[in-house]
Amino acid sequence: MSDIRIEELVRDGDTSPLSDWLRTTSVLDIVDELTRLDADGIAFAFRLLPRDRALEVFEALEPHDQQQVLDGLRHDRVRSLIEGLDPDDRARLFDEMPAKVVTRLLSQLSPDERALTTVLLGYPEHSAGRLMSPEFISLRASLTAAEAIDKIRRDGLDAETVYALPVLDDQRHLIGITGLRALVLAPPSARVGELMTTDIHQVTTDTDQEVAARLVREVGAIALPVVDSEGRLVGVITVDDALRVLEDEETEDFTLAGGASPLRTPYLSASAFDLAKVRALWLLLLIVAAALTVNVLQVFESTLNEVVTLALFIPLITGTGGNSGSQASTAVIRAMAVGEVRFTDLPRILWREARVGLLLGLMLSAAASIPIGLIFDRELAIVVVLTLILVCTWATTVGSGLPLLARRAGVDPAVVSAPLVTTLVDATALVVYFIIAKLVLGL
Amino acid sequence: MSDIRIEELVRDGDTSPLSDWLRTTSVLDIVDELTRLDADGIAFAFRLLPRDRALEVFEALEPHDQQQVLDGLRHDRVRSLIEGLDPDDRARLFDEMPAKVVTRLLSQLSPDERALTTVLLGYPEHSAGRLMSPEFISLRASLTAAEAIDKIRRDGLDAETVYALPVLDDQRHLIGITGLRALVLAPPSARVGELMTTDIHQVTTDTDQEVAARLVREVGAIALPVVDSEGRLVGVITVDDALRVLEDEETEDFTLAGGASPLRTPYLSASAFDLAKVRALWLLLLIVAAALTVNVLQVFESTLNEVVTLALFIPLITGTGGNSGSQASTAVIRAMAVGEVRFTDLPRILWREARVGLLLGLMLSAAASIPIGLIFDRELAIVVVLTLILVCTWATTVGSGLPLLARRAGVDPAVVSAPLVTTLVDATALVVYFIIAKLVLGL
Repeated sequence: MSDIRIEELVRDGDTSPLSDWLRTTSVLDIVDELTRLDADGIAFAFRLLPRDRALEVFEALEPHDQQQVLDGLRHDRVRSLIEGLDPDDRARLFDEMPAKVVTRLLSQLSPDERALTTVLLGYPEHSAGRLMSPEFISLRASLTAAEAIDKIRRDGLDAETVYALPVLDDQRHLIGITGLRALVLAPPSARVGELMTTDIHQVTTDTDQEVAARLVREVGAIALPVVDSEGRLVGVITVDDALRVLEDEETEDFTLAGGASPLRTPYLSASAFDLAKVRALWLLLLIVAAALTVNVLQVFESTLNEVVTLALFIPLITGTGGNSGSQASTAVIRAMAVGEVRFTDLPRILWREARVGLLLGLMLSAAASIPIGLIFDRELAIVVVLTLILVCTWATTVGSGLPLLARRAGVDPAVVSAPLVTTLVDATALVVYFIIAKLVLGL
Repeated sequence: MSDIRIEELVRDGDTSPLSDWLRTTSVLDIVDELTRLDADGIAFAFRLLPRDRALEVFEALEPHDQQQVLDGLRHDRVRSLIEGLDPDDRARLFDEMPAKVVTRLLSQLSPDERALTTVLLGYPEHSAGRLMSPEFISLRASLTAAEAIDKIRRDGLDAETVYALPVLDDQRHLIGITGLRALVLAPPSARVGELMTTDIHQVTTDTDQEVAARLVREVGAIALPVVDSEGRLVGVITVDDALRVLEDEETEDFTLAGGASPLRTPYLSASAFDLAKVRALWLLLLIVAAALTVNVLQVFESTLNEVVTLALFIPLITGTGGNSGSQASTAVIRAMAVGEVRFTDLPRILWREARVGLLLGLMLSAAASIPIGLIFDRELAIVVVLTLILVCTWATTVGSGLPLLARRAGVDPAVVSAPLVTTLVDATALVVYFIIAKLVLGL
């Protein structure tokens, strides 16, 4: 695939080999290549797709790219593409569009599809209600396996999954879950009530999407039931939708770990200006925090004037403090993200991380003391060694505690990124350094 | 759940309320609590589990915790737990155990189960061969839907999934895929050949696990076929196993982003010493790299002696360079991880990131120039402004290029972490700073 240079064909408007490629390549590979094109390129290539593959490709695109496709299409094709999407995917696309366009597109849908979509759009953003599919097949416990399979045959084409089948009572309350496999493997006269599991995990419509998606992954479920505030089943979250949310969430955590806001578009289709935009705010915040180091050094300027050699170790000390702090914060952020750690573990974690920092500080200062003692002098070596031990201990403690405190304060712990911890630790590390220097060198 | 303090009950050896809790709580919640206990605690609590739930809980534990459970159990229970695992989960557990124990356990398995496990153990670690399940149901294209469903009824209990059903020719080559849903919804006399899709994604046994798992997620498949070097089907990777690999892989990337090696055990069950161990090597490497900054500053020591004020901005400049560099590297690492970016994009990325860095540098220096000009003097402000612009541009370019070069050199791009980029950029940033200072201040 990559030896045929799709980007060149698109740029040159070379329709004939492009059409061949679009007809013969797998949907997934087409989507991969489209994602690398700019807005005009995507729209151009999409128009050349055979009609029967167009919906499949469209479904697999990110909302950002879907919009670019729609911008380049005629009215009737836009409508048929939108109508072809699953209600939850449609709601997701609409989230990214201007309200005016959404209203127009909604009005063009069939009444049934419109109703399904507006229900989903009524739930808060990032809620399980938005993510769920309202098209599912539910069973009664009193049905036989054969009757249940008949029902699936009748209703199954529209439902998003038939592999996880919720079992409801008369009030539409969820009482169990079964699956097509259990129904097929059972004797035809067995009752659904005997074939279902009652060890159910479920979420409500206002559960956070990420929490719901993690539950899907933990349970290893093919679909997770979503109930309303009265406990009545209103939808199911399928594993593929959960996966998408988890991937987005992990991208967000990872981007924050690098000290930037998440980018809403694929990396290559973002402009240099888009990239600068998501990073600018964080850099500004961090440089304001870094201004603190200038103040600290100003306070100790007379000490520096007396022993300029002290300046030589400033980047080494702030760097090492920052690094051990970021190690601790990323470890705790990840442990929180996968649900291993809670706020009540704070004292236990601080105590562990303080010991970790002490161990690391001892190791590093042992390694650093010899060259410094040889090249500079013994007193300077003592200053640096003591500083490294204290700074490492302090940095791991702060770095591990901040993410837990952030979540407690309602902030995404991933925001306590390596760059943030580094910058926060820098100023305190310098204070420690100069106080120790004054004491040891007798300034 | 968390208001009943399981950890306390275990510590106090309080068996009666613990047994009640283990009998009435969902498997997933039990697993969550067990993961937080130490080795003795896990083994103690596990022994109190009702027999019928024990296997389910055991299956859901990580291999590290599974081993701790086994260490605390009698011979016959160990054997029944091991025998109860799926072959791929068993291979995964064996990977973590001493070879001697594995040999003993293998000899206790039934011949069939032993054969399945040793086949899997024959594939290289981290390969799709290790991850796949060798227990699947395959169909022939010539079967009718009714015949296929009969076959599933006969063979379906052992197979790991019946929702993705590979269709094979006489040489066991994969020619299509269908699913139980399609078979149930179709007329009973329809042929499997008409009900299958031929747009197949597959991997070979030696494909990297992560590549295979990402493909499962991209395709949104319930199971991915695995073929041998002759193209014959030998197993399927199910979505839940793929999810586990992706979670491990993302934990690894995330930990590396913080400048540490990945921890193989859950955060809370690792000791302070374990934690220090995975971080020590990276910290040592980074402090050796940081020694470079000491050398650079030594070269410019006479300049520093003349204008000590220059020292005040050292942490601000290295910090900002490091931060803009880590933003760029994490963006590119993530884009590579989700498959948006390839090595051939290098020139395009460097060009974009250089512009991003320039934009960010201009913005930051505009923000910094005024306070510095007011508090210090105009010439110093010019030095800092010029340095910030150059350093940001340089840092984003280096930070974005290194992960791509790392992958080219066969190294995991996630290794080019924020701390590594920060440390590498520090020394060069200082050189730039002092050269500009000498030029502007005429030293």
